[in-house]
Amino acid sequence: MSASLEDVIRNRCEWLRGEGPLSEIVISTRIRLARNIRGFPFLPRADADLRAQVADTVETTIRRTDLLADYLHLSIDELDDLDRRVLVERQLISRQHAEGSGTRRVAFDPGGSCSLMINEEDHVRVQVMRSGMQLDAAWEQINAVDDALDAKLDFAYHAQFGYLTACPTNVGTGIRVSVMLHLPALRITNELDKVGQAAKDMKLAIRGLWGEGTEALGDFFQISNQITLGRSEEELIDDFHRTVIPQIVEYEQQARQALTAKRLHALDDKVYRAMGGLQSARLMSSTEAMQCLSHLRMGLNIGRIKTIDLNTVNDLFIQTQPGHLQKLHGGRLNGEQRSIARAALIRSKLHQN
Amino acid sequence: MSASLEDVIRNRCEWLRGEGPLSEIVISTRIRLARNIRGFPFLPRADADLRAQVADTVETTIRRTDLLADYLHLSIDELDDLDRRVLVERQLISRQHAEGSGTRRVAFDPGGSCSLMINEEDHVRVQVMRSGMQLDAAWEQINAVDDALDAKLDFAYHAQFGYLTACPTNVGTGIRVSVMLHLPALRITNELDKVGQAAKDMKLAIRGLWGEGTEALGDFFQISNQITLGRSEEELIDDFHRTVIPQIVEYEQQARQALTAKRLHALDDKVYRAMGGLQSARLMSSTEAMQCLSHLRMGLNIGRIKTIDLNTVNDLFIQTQPGHLQKLHGGRLNGEQRSIARAALIRSKLHQN
Repeated sequence: MSASLEDVIRNRCEWLRGEGPLSEIVISTRIRLARNIRGFPFLPRADADLRAQVADTVETTIRRTDLLADYLHLSIDELDDLDRRVLVERQLISRQHAEGSGTRRVAFDPGGSCSLMINEEDHVRVQVMRSGMQLDAAWEQINAVDDALDAKLDFAYHAQFGYLTACPTNVGTGIRVSVMLHLPALRITNELDKVGQAAKDMKLAIRGLWGEGTEALGDFFQISNQITLGRSEEELIDDFHRTVIPQIVEYEQQARQALTAKRLHALDDKVYRAMGGLQSARLMSSTEAMQCLSHLRMGLNIGRIKTIDLNTVNDLFIQTQPGHLQKLHGGRLNGEQRSIARAALIRSKLHQN
Repeated sequence: MSASLEDVIRNRCEWLRGEGPLSEIVISTRIRLARNIRGFPFLPRADADLRAQVADTVETTIRRTDLLADYLHLSIDELDDLDRRVLVERQLISRQHAEGSGTRRVAFDPGGSCSLMINEEDHVRVQVMRSGMQLDAAWEQINAVDDALDAKLDFAYHAQFGYLTACPTNVGTGIRVSVMLHLPALRITNELDKVGQAAKDMKLAIRGLWGEGTEALGDFFQISNQITLGRSEEELIDDFHRTVIPQIVEYEQQARQALTAKRLHALDDKVYRAMGGLQSARLMSSTEAMQCLSHLRMGLNIGRIKTIDLNTVNDLFIQTQPGHLQKLHGGRLNGEQRSIARAALIRSKLHQN
C-alpha cells in the first residue's frame, strides 16, 4: 500500500522508543545488508531503463512476499525535498538515497523498524532498526527478510568473496552493524577520547547521528563496523555485543556516577539549564535543541528531573528536525520561522501548564 | 551612631528602588561634591596624624550638625575587605576609598541616599543618590548638606578658581553629576554608539556600573560630567536635564519600541531565556546574573513578563554581588561556592513555588 507521510510522522520512531536493554545509553541498534540482483549491472553502470527494471523487480517481489506484504511503498524520486528530508530524519532512507538521481524507492514496515531501500547504492539495502541494545533481535529480523527476498531474487554472490556490492568496502557479508549511543556525561567530563580509542581498537568507525560526515549532535554517536570482508556476520555482531558496546556503556555510566558523586552542582546546572532553556526560548536552532534535549534526557535517566516524560523528550529529538517541524507545521518555513516554530513546539510539549 | 553592616544590607539600596521619573530607564541620579578644609594640607601631603585630625574634625562636625545627627558612622580602615566590598557595591563609598590607606571614614543617612566619605581623595566628599531622574531633588539635598557643613567648616575656596580640590580636574564647582542608565535595548539593537556620541557632544564621560574602569555590566551605564571648572552647578545640571539624558532615554525607548514592533520573537527570546536561566541555573557568575537580570528587568518594564515583582529583580542586582552574597550567606565563600549560592539565592527569589 502507498504510505502517507502525514501518517508516518505521527508515529514514534522505532529507534527513539527508549526501550530495550541499556536504553538509557544505547539509543538504537541498526543492521544493514547490501544485495544486488544477478543479471543486472551495478547501479553506476545501469541506465534509466535498467534502474527502473531493477526497482520494479524488487518492488514486485516485496509486494508478493507474505512477510513484507503490509510494507508501505514510496517513490523517492517523486517526493519533494521536504518529504525526503522527513524520511532521512527518521533514518528510513539514507541521505545518499534522498539526494540521488533516477528511480529510487523505499518500502518499510508500518512500525518503521525495517526499511528496504531500492536503488540506493546497491539494488537493495535492507535495514532493521531496534530501540536499545537489540542486536540479536535485529539480526533475526533482517535474516528473515533477507531469506524471504533470497527465495524470490537471485542475489549476486561469489563463492570466495561473498555477496557482491557496488562499492568494494561492502563486499563479503555486505553487513553493516551500527549502534547509536547517547554519551552526554563523557562529553561533559571531556573523556570522549576513551570512546574513540575503544572503537579504534576494534576497527570500528564513529559518526554523528545522521551518518557519515555529520557532527555528533546532541551527544549522539554511531559506532559501526568498517570491515565486511573476511568475518562472518556472527563474529561482527559478537564484537559489538561482547566488547566494544559494553565497554563504552560502562565508561558513560562511570562518567555519570562521577558527575553525580563529585560534581552534582555542575551536572544539575547542565540539566536544569537545558530544561529552562527549552521551556523559555522563543527562538531555537536544531543544534541547540539537540544539545538541550540531550542534557534533559540524561537528567531524566539519572533521576535528577522527574517532572517530564522521557517519551516526550525522545519524540522531540525528531519533531524538532527541520523536515518534521515543517510537516507538523503544515508548510514550508524559512530559517527564522523554523526557529520560532521549534521553540513554540518544545514549549508546548515541555510546559506543565 | 555606629552602623551595623548586617542592618545596612537588609535595606533596599536607594538607587535601586526603581522609583522616580523615567525610572524604567534612569536607574539613579547621583551628585557628588569635593570639599577640603582650609588649614589642612591635601591628603597626598598629609601624614597619618594630620589625616586623623581631618577625619576627627569632619566626623565631629557631622555629629554636631542637626541635619546629619542620625547619620551612621563607619571607620573604613577598621573594616575587613568583605564589609568594605559591601559598601562599594551599595555605592556608599568608592572603590578608591575602600582600597586606600590611612584613616578613612564614612557617614551616611539610614536610607542610604546621602553619604559623606572622609579622607577619600579629598577631605570630604558628599554624595547624594536618588532613584530615577531626580537631579533637582538631589541637588537640593546635597546643597542643604553642603550648607550645613559649610556653616561649621572653613572650606578651601579661591575667588577665581572656586573650590580647591586635591585633583585639579575637580577644581571649580567640585561637583560631579552622574546618571545611571539601563540601556538593554540599545545593546541588543547594537546602537550604543548613539549614546557614546550624545555623551561626547556634551563632553560627558560614560562608565560602567561601579565607576571608572568597570565594564558596563548588565547594560548599566553611568553618564557623568568631566568638566568642573568654568561652569556653574546649575549649568551642569541643566546639561543633563535638558539635553543628554532625555535624548538617550528616547533612543532607548525607540529601541524598545522597534524590538517590540519588529523583532518581538528575538526580544521575548532574550527576556524569557533570561528568566529561564535565572530560575534554572545551579551555577551562576555575577556577570551572567547581571546580564540576565538586565533582560528580565526590561521584560518587566515593557510588560512582556508580569509574573515577577520588579523590586525582587532590583534587589537581586545588589544581592548577587560577591560582597552582599557572602554577607547574606553569613561567611566567606570561594568562587565556586559563590556561584552555587548566587544561583540558589536567585532561584529562591524568582521561583513562584
